[in-house]
Amino acid sequence: MIDFSYCSPTRYIFGRGVESQVGELTAAMGVKKVLVVSGHGSARRSGLLDRVLVSICAAGVQTLELTGIDPNPTDDRVYEGIEICRREGVDGVVAVGGGSAIDTAKAIAGGVLYDGDFWDFYEGKAVMERALPIGVVLTIPAAGSEGSGNSVITRKSDMKKISLRTDMALRPKFAILNPELTFTLPPFQVASGIADMMAHIMERYFSPTDDCTTTDRVAEGLLKAIIEEATRTMAAPDDYQPRANIMWAGTLAHNGVCGCGRVEDWVSHFMEHEISAVYGVTHGAGLAVVFPAWMTFMAQHKPERVAQFARRVFDVKESDDRAAAFEGISCLRAFYGSIGLPVSFGELGIENPDIDLLVKRLHANKGEVIGGYYRLTQADTYEIYKIMNL
Amino acid sequence: MIDFSYCSPTRYIFGRGVESQVGELTAAMGVKKVLVVSGHGSARRSGLLDRVLVSICAAGVQTLELTGIDPNPTDDRVYEGIEICRREGVDGVVAVGGGSAIDTAKAIAGGVLYDGDFWDFYEGKAVMERALPIGVVLTIPAAGSEGSGNSVITRKSDMKKISLRTDMALRPKFAILNPELTFTLPPFQVASGIADMMAHIMERYFSPTDDCTTTDRVAEGLLKAIIEEATRTMAAPDDYQPRANIMWAGTLAHNGVCGCGRVEDWVSHFMEHEISAVYGVTHGAGLAVVFPAWMTFMAQHKPERVAQFARRVFDVKESDDRAAAFEGISCLRAFYGSIGLPVSFGELGIENPDIDLLVKRLHANKGEVIGGYYRLTQADTYEIYKIMNL
Repeated sequence: MIDFSYCSPTRYIFGRGVESQVGELTAAMGVKKVLVVSGHGSARRSGLLDRVLVSICAAGVQTLELTGIDPNPTDDRVYEGIEICRREGVDGVVAVGGGSAIDTAKAIAGGVLYDGDFWDFYEGKAVMERALPIGVVLTIPAAGSEGSGNSVITRKSDMKKISLRTDMALRPKFAILNPELTFTLPPFQVASGIADMMAHIMERYFSPTDDCTTTDRVAEGLLKAIIEEATRTMAAPDDYQPRANIMWAGTLAHNGVCGCGRVEDWVSHFMEHEISAVYGVTHGAGLAVVFPAWMTFMAQHKPERVAQFARRVFDVKESDDRAAAFEGISCLRAFYGSIGLPVSFGELGIENPDIDLLVKRLHANKGEVIGGYYRLTQADTYEIYKIMNL
Repeated sequence: MIDFSYCSPTRYIFGRGVESQVGELTAAMGVKKVLVVSGHGSARRSGLLDRVLVSICAAGVQTLELTGIDPNPTDDRVYEGIEICRREGVDGVVAVGGGSAIDTAKAIAGGVLYDGDFWDFYEGKAVMERALPIGVVLTIPAAGSEGSGNSVITRKSDMKKISLRTDMALRPKFAILNPELTFTLPPFQVASGIADMMAHIMERYFSPTDDCTTTDRVAEGLLKAIIEEATRTMAAPDDYQPRANIMWAGTLAHNGVCGCGRVEDWVSHFMEHEISAVYGVTHGAGLAVVFPAWMTFMAQHKPERVAQFARRVFDVKESDDRAAAFEGISCLRAFYGSIGLPVSFGELGIENPDIDLLVKRLHANKGEVIGGYYRLTQADTYEIYKIMNL
């Protein structure tokens, strides 16, 4: 274990109907006028958005809306939100939706209190120390943004996805988690969300830091729980309990507890971001393609932790590390396939991927040599993208 | 899963030498004059207490001391601390030690701001909504109080141990966790601490609530980590990594994450509290005696979760629940024995336990029928105490 400082101050309110508490929770943040940020019509069609607005109004807090946030949210909506907040004197934000609405709300919350361009934070030119208070009503368990201090925004000018990780400023004050709100998600979106939360755990699990038994075991436990409950939830979309377990696991996957005491990896996310940016695929589905490919490379070059993953998450019995790793990768691909996810460029709908372009963009954005678990050159990432052709 | 609201706002600062940050962290709580609460001489002898006091003074915060807090801390020291705080205008507390120092500091922190008797909170006559800000420098990984909102104090007049659980008021603002500070603990104290942290997980794990896969898997993972690292740490007391894993697991065992979404049990703690009160044994050692006995009763009456525990924590292969449960209990007893813990009244040094007295006290204090996982009558708890005779 390496030294760390960790604080996850978000209050999680979990259960049936808990979105009725959003007004009271928003008022308790000391907010007088709130910007409610949401995605496309589903929250409105289901009546959720109206219930949220009514609850907030009933608590004596004025509301303004920013709606129609797209998946892979872009900076134009952030600028629009900042402008509304400044013009109207908004002093808090509430996101209703998944990672896109939450990450946009976070960028706005931090940008409003900053004189310069909000991109300064994302590009490392400034450190975000404060933001408007943020609340979340989660409808898509996937991104884990409801419990993290992170935000990812796409810059429209060059379609570059840029991540910001703050220690505290962007951690939501509250996150309302009602599993019932996820019953109507399309199966492909549910499955992509599952791949996303598993990736959040695995990016932390594949670490060069030895002797993290406690954090390892927590991560492995969460992965096992997700795999078990994913199968149940795909088979019975209206069953509350699997949904509840998946939702809670998605939060724990990304609130930082799986990273305590170690260096993290994140190369698979970086590689997927380029696929998403160039081909517009769903992030989680892209991760289901990237991760087994990345692991296949590692099975050949540094198999130890892939073997541990195989043995502890998929109960692989093989004693040779390389063989165990390959068996674990097969199990992971089979699992992704079983919930309807692609595991190759072809299945992702990309027949002739421009791997040169992906590698070029990846290293231009992230550096010549990348990755925490194993340092990857351009030749290495080229090879990993190649594996995705199967 | 049942509905829950969960917030763990404590900042954990973990690593070598991190106690040097105590001054800065105390000042950051907005404190001007702090009461530093500590146990018997070991923190002073090692120089830790002086380092803490110097760090706090250097940060411009005045210090007062309350030292010599005993194991199973008593109310007389709480009253003394409250009196000092009021007289001197103390506006924050820092505990240096383990559960006894921390729980005393917490009782003082809550009591200072209350006009009535602090016992009102512990006896459920008042709800503690606020307390002075609390900081912790942990030296004994065991009680988990550094990350919990709980406190246990013994009333001297009747030697009754009474627990208080607050949602937020008593959660420390910061907890400084330096595994090096635990190198010199006597082996029996280390082992007792290990039994205590395992008990904090198991009291939550043995739940009547079904379908808590995510929380189950986290709990099982932590138990596996503790068992693995306990063996390493007993064998090599000066090895940083096992100590670090144990310390972090002890915090996660009791900060509430293992209880999310379910009803908890806590009967084993109640039963042990009576043994401690009557015979003055070490709490963790008492728990090592109680838990296998409680599980043995459950193997006969409600074996399902004991069997799951056996299979997932000790990799028991037995398919029959009752047989699996018994095999798991053997593994648990063997593990406790291997780190030098007692698993019977005799090994605990109690040759002729007055079981009638223990049962009478237990039910007088906790009610006629007790327990979350399985409802126990006086006849049941009598039987469980009997099992401890082996």
